[in-house]
Amino acid sequence: MYSIKRLLIGRPLKSTALGEQKLNKTKALAILSSDALSSVAYGPEQILIVLVAVGVTAFWYSVPIAIGVLVLLTALILSYRQIIYAYPHGGGAYVVSKENLGVWPGLISGGSLLVDYVLTVAVSVSAGTDAITSAFPSLHEHTVLIAIAFVLFTTVLNLRGVTESASILAYPVYLFVLALFILIGVGIYDIATGAVPPDLHASIGTPVAGISLFLLLKAFASGSSALTGVEAISNAILNFKSPAPANASRTLLMMGALLAVLFSGIVFLAYYYGISPRTEVTVVSQIAEQTFGRHFMYFFIQGTTALILILAANTGYSAFPLLAVNLANDKFIPRIFTVRGDRLGYSNGIITLGFLSIVLIVAFQGNTEHLIPLYAVGVFIPFTMSQTGMMVKWIRQKPKGWIFKLVVNSIGALISFTVTIMFFITKFEQVWSVIVFLPTIIYVFHRIKKHYEAVGKQLRLTTCEPAMPIEGNVFILPVAGITHVVETSINYAQSLSAQQIIAVYIPFEREDETAFEEKWNKFHPDVRLVTLHSPYRTIIQPLMKFIDTVERKANESNYQVTVIIPQFIPKKGWHNILHNQTSLMIRARLLYRKNVIVTTVPYHLKK
Amino acid sequence: MYSIKRLLIGRPLKSTALGEQKLNKTKALAILSSDALSSVAYGPEQILIVLVAVGVTAFWYSVPIAIGVLVLLTALILSYRQIIYAYPHGGGAYVVSKENLGVWPGLISGGSLLVDYVLTVAVSVSAGTDAITSAFPSLHEHTVLIAIAFVLFTTVLNLRGVTESASILAYPVYLFVLALFILIGVGIYDIATGAVPPDLHASIGTPVAGISLFLLLKAFASGSSALTGVEAISNAILNFKSPAPANASRTLLMMGALLAVLFSGIVFLAYYYGISPRTEVTVVSQIAEQTFGRHFMYFFIQGTTALILILAANTGYSAFPLLAVNLANDKFIPRIFTVRGDRLGYSNGIITLGFLSIVLIVAFQGNTEHLIPLYAVGVFIPFTMSQTGMMVKWIRQKPKGWIFKLVVNSIGALISFTVTIMFFITKFEQVWSVIVFLPTIIYVFHRIKKHYEAVGKQLRLTTCEPAMPIEGNVFILPVAGITHVVETSINYAQSLSAQQIIAVYIPFEREDETAFEEKWNKFHPDVRLVTLHSPYRTIIQPLMKFIDTVERKANESNYQVTVIIPQFIPKKGWHNILHNQTSLMIRARLLYRKNVIVTTVPYHLKK
Repeated sequence: MYSIKRLLIGRPLKSTALGEQKLNKTKALAILSSDALSSVAYGPEQILIVLVAVGVTAFWYSVPIAIGVLVLLTALILSYRQIIYAYPHGGGAYVVSKENLGVWPGLISGGSLLVDYVLTVAVSVSAGTDAITSAFPSLHEHTVLIAIAFVLFTTVLNLRGVTESASILAYPVYLFVLALFILIGVGIYDIATGAVPPDLHASIGTPVAGISLFLLLKAFASGSSALTGVEAISNAILNFKSPAPANASRTLLMMGALLAVLFSGIVFLAYYYGISPRTEVTVVSQIAEQTFGRHFMYFFIQGTTALILILAANTGYSAFPLLAVNLANDKFIPRIFTVRGDRLGYSNGIITLGFLSIVLIVAFQGNTEHLIPLYAVGVFIPFTMSQTGMMVKWIRQKPKGWIFKLVVNSIGALISFTVTIMFFITKFEQVWSVIVFLPTIIYVFHRIKKHYEAVGKQLRLTTCEPAMPIEGNVFILPVAGITHVVETSINYAQSLSAQQIIAVYIPFEREDETAFEEKWNKFHPDVRLVTLHSPYRTIIQPLMKFIDTVERKANESNYQVTVIIPQFIPKKGWHNILHNQTSLMIRARLLYRKNVIVTTVPYHLKK
Repeated sequence: MYSIKRLLIGRPLKSTALGEQKLNKTKALAILSSDALSSVAYGPEQILIVLVAVGVTAFWYSVPIAIGVLVLLTALILSYRQIIYAYPHGGGAYVVSKENLGVWPGLISGGSLLVDYVLTVAVSVSAGTDAITSAFPSLHEHTVLIAIAFVLFTTVLNLRGVTESASILAYPVYLFVLALFILIGVGIYDIATGAVPPDLHASIGTPVAGISLFLLLKAFASGSSALTGVEAISNAILNFKSPAPANASRTLLMMGALLAVLFSGIVFLAYYYGISPRTEVTVVSQIAEQTFGRHFMYFFIQGTTALILILAANTGYSAFPLLAVNLANDKFIPRIFTVRGDRLGYSNGIITLGFLSIVLIVAFQGNTEHLIPLYAVGVFIPFTMSQTGMMVKWIRQKPKGWIFKLVVNSIGALISFTVTIMFFITKFEQVWSVIVFLPTIIYVFHRIKKHYEAVGKQLRLTTCEPAMPIEGNVFILPVAGITHVVETSINYAQSLSAQQIIAVYIPFEREDETAFEEKWNKFHPDVRLVTLHSPYRTIIQPLMKFIDTVERKANESNYQVTVIIPQFIPKKGWHNILHNQTSLMIRARLLYRKNVIVTTVPYHLKK
């Protein structure tokens, strides 16, 4: 076990090595923007899927819709830039909402994002697997297995540590950007030189029968799912080399620029080539095939697309554990999420994320595209919350130049809110579950916090009654025979100058009773023996009843009751099945039901 | 949990109620002979399956083969009658072989029978389910589930107790006997009145091309699988009302007579009707259909056949636990098999049997007919062993009339041995696994016995070195903070007048170290504090190392080391996931790896 762990995640790191685990801008851009950048692989397609319901002539609407998405992108990038400088210790939407709007809005943001990162992993890994099976249809039936393998791989990579995963993951991200630049460049060159027939698409402005504002809003909302992931940098500022805020801000701007270019390029090519969305071949794959044929470049684009989609999952792995730490520090989720693993990453968060996304992938059999709207809503709710939080902050604090900052965040909040509402109106059947799970999660958060607070109060020395003074000790020793183990236990109890030692023997047959008593009196006449005949052949019940009686009496005179339980430790694991596990059962019952102390005396068998 | 158990198996019985759990002859015949009687539902079919390989003209050979089987049956019944009187305390083949031939032959018999009873349950329940699906082909696809349900039902019935299951199971057994008597009677009447055309079968003596001695021996061996189960009564004499041996012997004779009549009747009708074995319809079902058409009687016969086949499993449930008790008393299998359950049955044996047969049914997907030869061999090996054992006994002891007894057992031994050899020669590809699993089981028996003997020796006061005198006590108390729990634990340790109490604090950060030391000195300056900085953020490793050091020093002056571990007991089960289970991990590591005593101080959270 131990050596497998070492092989997978490497040797443990000292806490002092934490500083070496920070990211420079190039690596940070790669691992924190892979989610946002990868969205261009499915964002444009989402727009076309909505428009195809009216007919192919409606496809030209994708161009104005894309312009709308770019406006939204600009607003979000500027808003998040302000959040980065205002909250240089990270935490993103959760911290911003909590500090400016209150605990409940904070939990709404935190809860949405937590679920959202699980969706990020599931959706992007599934999409990456789809890109692979588009190229190799024979793999289509193994989708779920391939997706699970990728999740496991990413989980292990992240357990190894953030810099190590960044080093490995940077190449594919930049290769993807390069591949799409070549695709868009060659595509536009072809169009400019007239190599592409201009009659593949309806020209912009062609009247379309049956188009409605509702449909266009739905297409816009679908297209803005390409913006998921832009918040990741604001959550992970702590992972940057110093000066962290400046580096993070520059990385954010760079990401925005790349995203804008790639998104508009793909939308434009898809429109110009008149591409229709198809079930088993993605839009990017169709564009690449039309541009290059089944040429090396086609496979290069498919390969890097698959890779970036899978790596988009990595953004979830960077952001989820840090968000979980924030929530756990505030006692809304189990404390275990604040513990750094062997490689200094928050390994419990990483493992939880991997596990939950595998559950999702299996539950949806790899068809997670149904989850994209849910995923988008889960991003736009915290988008709205955090921008609103920033508005409140500027109005309250009124720093220098606050009017401009307020305007930027207000535009961001307004558009995000509009998109959220659009999702609820146009895709209610896909996003209604948010209304169920979000209150549920927040309720659970609340219960957990309440429990931790209650425990804290009970443990604090100042708030609880002083510990009971112990006037004396009673030791109870269940015995099954007169053996070496019993001798050792009595020896121990006597060395502790216990005021009373009571051996308890529980025979199933009346005849055993007197026979054992006689033997005992020869063996240890100084130790009192109590025999409890058990007509129903159970040891636990009479023993518990007896302990109850002793405990009641002991309590009257402030005596403490201790039960001594010998435990055989066989030399080999399989030997355990040869011994009744009565001592385990007794110990569990005693600890959970009674207020007695349980002392386990191990007896290591040598053979 | 508890109330479900009560509902299923009833209230617990006192040990003194054991006498009321004995069987009278009628009930004993029903539950102990259902296995043997049910064999007539598939024994004749097994003969025909072998003969059909040569052609339908060969079917007349089933008549002389059946006569051979009847001779064998007579020899076995007489032999087992002698075993019952010689070993009135039961135990059957295992005890007889062990006492007269030695431990190894005893284990061969015991091991074969133990496996065999599992096969009994799997094979007979599967066969019963087949009979049901013969009548209702639409249920065919649910075979495995139906079979598992029947195993569970029989297991629960047996956990309720032997008399209760006998009362319920007696009716179907006698109904089956009645049904077959009617079938055979009407069949023979039809034949006698000429209602059946006499040209359906080749007459006895018709020369058959391609018949060989090998094939006839194979058919004979297959037919003798109908004799499995005749040993059950000799294993379960203890379940009879007194005088147990006389009652058991009479029951055995009655069973032999019934078996002889039913077996010859079915073989004769199958031969006269010229019935061929078919995959989805059993031979008995074909006979019934030819005799009555799809009449009420047909369904009555099918129904009772299905029932008796399923109930045949019950013979396994009566014999397996008693055999297991014998083996466990001799320390060849875990002691747990000697424990009587709430209803005085040996419930661990019953549950083990049910579990193992479900495993077999699932593994073979309900097609357990392949197991019939294996099952038969597993019976004939102990048949041979026990008869040989009786031969040795008569020769050694020479009681009155021993020559006749010796002759009976010698014939029994000879035929049983012949059948065993025939199985190995004619069906080697189906029974070879005996050669693998029997030595394996016996090896396991041997290892278990060796372990128990080693443990016994280590525990006995006379053989082991006297317990170490304890000169003083050192208490180690790992602390995570200054809380009420720590206060309670220190209080306890001090009340035991421990010579040394050492609190151990394990900070992950250097800064924590001095801060905690200062706080501690204000809190309990009388208790020594040791801080162990853990750069790798693990508690277990530095703690274990420290305990090692303390233990080494303590051993030098005969001091005993005790580690006090506080354990939170939350009010609700789900709260456990909110607390690190460090204390559980520490306790497990300490008990299994070190020679220290572990004292668990429970802290019951009130909220």
